[in-house]
Amino acid sequence: MAERAMANAIRALTMDAVQAANSGHPGMPMGMADVATVLFDRFMRIDPADPRWPDRDRLVLSAGHGSMLLYAINHLLGYADMPVEELKRFRQLGALTAGHPEYGHAGGIEVTTGPLGQGIATAVGMALAERMAEARWGSELVDHWTYVIAGDGCLMEGISHEAIDLAGHLGLGRLIVLWDDNKITIDGGTELSTSTDQRARFAAAGWHTVACDAHEPEEIAAAIEAARADPRPSLIACNSIIGWGAPSKQGGHDVHGAPLGADEIAAARGYLEWPHEPFVIAPEIYEKWHAIARRGAEARAAWQARLAASPRRAAFEAAQARVGEEALAKAMDSYKAQLSADMPKFATRKASEMALAVVNTALPETIGGSADLTGSNLTRTKGMRPVTRADYGGRYIHFGIREHGMAAAMNGIALHGGFRPYGGTFLAFADYLRPAIRLSALMGVPVTYVMTHDSIGLGEDGPTHQPVEHLASLRAIPNLTVIRPADAVETAEAWQIAMTATATPTLLVLSRQNLPTVRDTHEQANLTARGAYPLRGPARRQVTLIATGSEVEIALAAADLLEAGGIRAAVVSAPSFELFAAQPEAYRAEVLGEAPRVGVEAAIRQGWDGPILRTGDGFVGMTGFGASAPAPDLYRHFGITAEAVADIARKLIKE
Amino acid sequence: MAERAMANAIRALTMDAVQAANSGHPGMPMGMADVATVLFDRFMRIDPADPRWPDRDRLVLSAGHGSMLLYAINHLLGYADMPVEELKRFRQLGALTAGHPEYGHAGGIEVTTGPLGQGIATAVGMALAERMAEARWGSELVDHWTYVIAGDGCLMEGISHEAIDLAGHLGLGRLIVLWDDNKITIDGGTELSTSTDQRARFAAAGWHTVACDAHEPEEIAAAIEAARADPRPSLIACNSIIGWGAPSKQGGHDVHGAPLGADEIAAARGYLEWPHEPFVIAPEIYEKWHAIARRGAEARAAWQARLAASPRRAAFEAAQARVGEEALAKAMDSYKAQLSADMPKFATRKASEMALAVVNTALPETIGGSADLTGSNLTRTKGMRPVTRADYGGRYIHFGIREHGMAAAMNGIALHGGFRPYGGTFLAFADYLRPAIRLSALMGVPVTYVMTHDSIGLGEDGPTHQPVEHLASLRAIPNLTVIRPADAVETAEAWQIAMTATATPTLLVLSRQNLPTVRDTHEQANLTARGAYPLRGPARRQVTLIATGSEVEIALAAADLLEAGGIRAAVVSAPSFELFAAQPEAYRAEVLGEAPRVGVEAAIRQGWDGPILRTGDGFVGMTGFGASAPAPDLYRHFGITAEAVADIARKLIKE
Repeated sequence: MAERAMANAIRALTMDAVQAANSGHPGMPMGMADVATVLFDRFMRIDPADPRWPDRDRLVLSAGHGSMLLYAINHLLGYADMPVEELKRFRQLGALTAGHPEYGHAGGIEVTTGPLGQGIATAVGMALAERMAEARWGSELVDHWTYVIAGDGCLMEGISHEAIDLAGHLGLGRLIVLWDDNKITIDGGTELSTSTDQRARFAAAGWHTVACDAHEPEEIAAAIEAARADPRPSLIACNSIIGWGAPSKQGGHDVHGAPLGADEIAAARGYLEWPHEPFVIAPEIYEKWHAIARRGAEARAAWQARLAASPRRAAFEAAQARVGEEALAKAMDSYKAQLSADMPKFATRKASEMALAVVNTALPETIGGSADLTGSNLTRTKGMRPVTRADYGGRYIHFGIREHGMAAAMNGIALHGGFRPYGGTFLAFADYLRPAIRLSALMGVPVTYVMTHDSIGLGEDGPTHQPVEHLASLRAIPNLTVIRPADAVETAEAWQIAMTATATPTLLVLSRQNLPTVRDTHEQANLTARGAYPLRGPARRQVTLIATGSEVEIALAAADLLEAGGIRAAVVSAPSFELFAAQPEAYRAEVLGEAPRVGVEAAIRQGWDGPILRTGDGFVGMTGFGASAPAPDLYRHFGITAEAVADIARKLIKE
Repeated sequence: MAERAMANAIRALTMDAVQAANSGHPGMPMGMADVATVLFDRFMRIDPADPRWPDRDRLVLSAGHGSMLLYAINHLLGYADMPVEELKRFRQLGALTAGHPEYGHAGGIEVTTGPLGQGIATAVGMALAERMAEARWGSELVDHWTYVIAGDGCLMEGISHEAIDLAGHLGLGRLIVLWDDNKITIDGGTELSTSTDQRARFAAAGWHTVACDAHEPEEIAAAIEAARADPRPSLIACNSIIGWGAPSKQGGHDVHGAPLGADEIAAARGYLEWPHEPFVIAPEIYEKWHAIARRGAEARAAWQARLAASPRRAAFEAAQARVGEEALAKAMDSYKAQLSADMPKFATRKASEMALAVVNTALPETIGGSADLTGSNLTRTKGMRPVTRADYGGRYIHFGIREHGMAAAMNGIALHGGFRPYGGTFLAFADYLRPAIRLSALMGVPVTYVMTHDSIGLGEDGPTHQPVEHLASLRAIPNLTVIRPADAVETAEAWQIAMTATATPTLLVLSRQNLPTVRDTHEQANLTARGAYPLRGPARRQVTLIATGSEVEIALAAADLLEAGGIRAAVVSAPSFELFAAQPEAYRAEVLGEAPRVGVEAAIRQGWDGPILRTGDGFVGMTGFGASAPAPDLYRHFGITAEAVADIARKLIKE
């Protein structure tokens, strides 16, 4: 029963850490300790000395509240950043051991989890990336597995449906989900809220399924073997007892999310025959866990040798390192010069497609996709063939009508490494994928969201499809760069910013309707990267008109109207409030000027006051939901016109 | 083939309206016209003369882009608000025939749809409401069906999983989903993105399933009969040809979302043997549709007679009319008086539970629930027994870990009428249900969202669970009242506002941590309804501190600090920015005063500038994601303290 003792080490560390923190979730780690132990002892191939080794197996703790499972394992394996002191500081300020696993805190944490269902959906992206990488580099360099530990909550969340359908459709046989089938949720038994036959459900989506007793190592191992042997993605229903080892609390919902208490911990120590003091692990148990790490180190050494001998080593390493910005910059400069010469009139979604043609040529590791709006988002450039179960060498993913699953999969593809994913939908449906966007931002994963049909300018589809509050709500997310370009030049620059970002997701906000080119100089610098800049700046301006995206055209027309009346109006294009906020204060003051200001955006005012507008400045935009009508009618109806902007400007100047 | 001609009327009106608008989606209405015709001709019980008749059958067009199907049917049935002129103005400004069906525009529109998956999930709430009403009033008064027309998109969206699981679990046999199984999505054939066996998937969730040829009336009728006969909710896979009747385009994805063009329409008129001019329907076809309406009118008359004879008529009508505010007001007044006497120190989530005890006693039509966080959200009051498939007479719904499905079901319960639903989850997970919140707001459905654990004050669970941008992002949604009460008194008032609202959803933002009672007067007026009001207002204030929720306590402590230093600081509690914005300008100016202002909220500043703060005013709050630690440590770490507020106030006064 060596594995039982290894598992009990997880249980003891979990009990002790949760007790020390007086907060946390002992139920899942104690219930799944045997499963996790068998998984690591017999299957996982990781090397704590190089947590980012590209060909490592991934473990995604989708049931993120069971974070102590992961922290305990990483400590036992010998990750340098997970000494026992970190376990003792579980859930304390500055510790790497946050309440839920936070990507970037410690090497053994593959992904931030906690919001339920995100882990399993992110893992689909990882498993897909593995197959795509294998198609490019061969099994000598790419040959790993993605394991997920998921709970009932993960499987109830809607995103799990999008994830398992996509995984089944794409035949991701390297994905194995270990479902903690403990029949307990926070409110009580699962019979309170679900009657679903999960195995039948997964089978309907093209998965292989198998069950095991979560406390019988040989059964667990046999299930994992069967899962690995089957070409389909696999669900293993692990029949577990939540909180296994806490004699009077196990199997009940009280053990899910609260410390066991000193008495129960003492009883558990007896039950588990665990004589050690809190946080003390016997050397022979450490030794067994370290053996797993040694096996992984050997595998990594062999892999390094294969890489060293590979004629494609440089290319492989370049893909991992996300180089290629110089090539992109060069290609973009000549593309932009051409645009300034042509002054085309395109929707920015069309301009995005043109910029993407440059991006996708310069950067072979981009992977595009759309949630079934390819012809609307214009995300697929020439020559991109679809990724299918028969051909993982493609570069375009038909994500289906699964915005949320798409976003989580993009996170997974980016976290896996070797690729730069982007994906499209309508801006109004940013609401559907918002929880995954938040995780992109929280993790600092540089994925790119392509959001088209960005205002009432989409016209007849009406208020359900017209974003009004979405710009404000997305600008509210920390560490997300929102860019709403005004024309083809700014769109090209926005793509360059997105591709150069290393720790920030980028969200591009693009028009359905055509827009003129407003950048009429041959300026080579990326002005979009400054967030806002003067587009037209007469000396001694009397008013500053500040606009984004499709409303820059309106601001320019308003400036013309004002000029005709003898008023000197400057026009500022402000594609990204976040990038502008990062500029030096002197630059910002110079761009915005001292004169009265008028903001123009076909969206609500929230988010303009403070960063852009001052008390008393004007704004032309929306104050409520949109309507269904041709776009020009809507702009007139809602009063977003050059005349309205000019009127407000005149009023402010007089005051 | 009378039904074929009736269906062709739908097809012709669809082609003509989309062509006239030069925009719209002919594919679904033409493909599903036969199914819809059989459904209405043989089963639907509605009376166009009383579109709100409580015992009518409901049709939810989950595939909302096929709105012309609904408009055409409503016109053919003789709804007074759907004359042919409205069809001719399809998708034009001011028409009732928006691109997607908009609840409230016309009587025959049960729900706003368009964002995919929302319709089916809302219908689950409607079908559940029917069963709950039947349990209360008996089948003499409540005996109707909920039908859904859903497309592939609806079934791919994650929310459909939450909806079908919940429906299967609750055994909603009165729910019948007609799936437009046309094997086409926007990007192409469904084989591009899905391999799911939908019938097996629904069966796994406890549904009855059956298939039919969508163009064979007898098969369609037999399938609906089978569905009605089965006690489980039913999925009918309607094997349809998208755009049926457009000879050269039918069956392809080009017919989905663009006008057919004059040539194809002419060809279709030949194919359908439809000799009439655009928008012209032969009298004999109108007559067949009007016969359906007459059948419905007779059924309604019989129902009215039963209601008139019922001893419970008054109670039934009261439930529909949402009366009871007076009883609630009286009960609330005495509860508030008691609170002011006791001055308890509770978390506002606990205060919410106490207020709910008053609400649920005064208003028997409330229905509570939580997405598996009952003990955290404190949404279940004493004596509320669960709603189960064996007992629809309960008042508490265990929604499971399905936030999005919960919100959509709440919309459906409210739209059905007779109930006032509320449901809880953590505020951070507002992101999961945001698309359904948006529809609550767009439709003006007065549901109540109970969002607890509203800031870093939740402590150790860390940044995944800590709302930072959520208040700003929710305040951004038009027609949503967000209320973040500071204590038990404001929480009671917030509940009263929520229950009195008729066309606005309310979102309550509640603390996990304990908060003192700050309203120390016996003031009976509902001050929370004013949005913001002075809590402490010394004469000739030198600074105004404005705070919400848990930070009001901090603002009061800061005022004490300032007072100790001889500075007169007013404190304003601002539980709801929306309610405050609706106050007269003079009131707002008086509350906020002329002195420098400091805002305090454990969230980002966005949304404060403009409505509350001016250029140069101060703010104490968050600027990025939170962290995992005990709450008091986090407040210190992020500098949200009375000292910090007082420091900024002093600085502003000196300037």
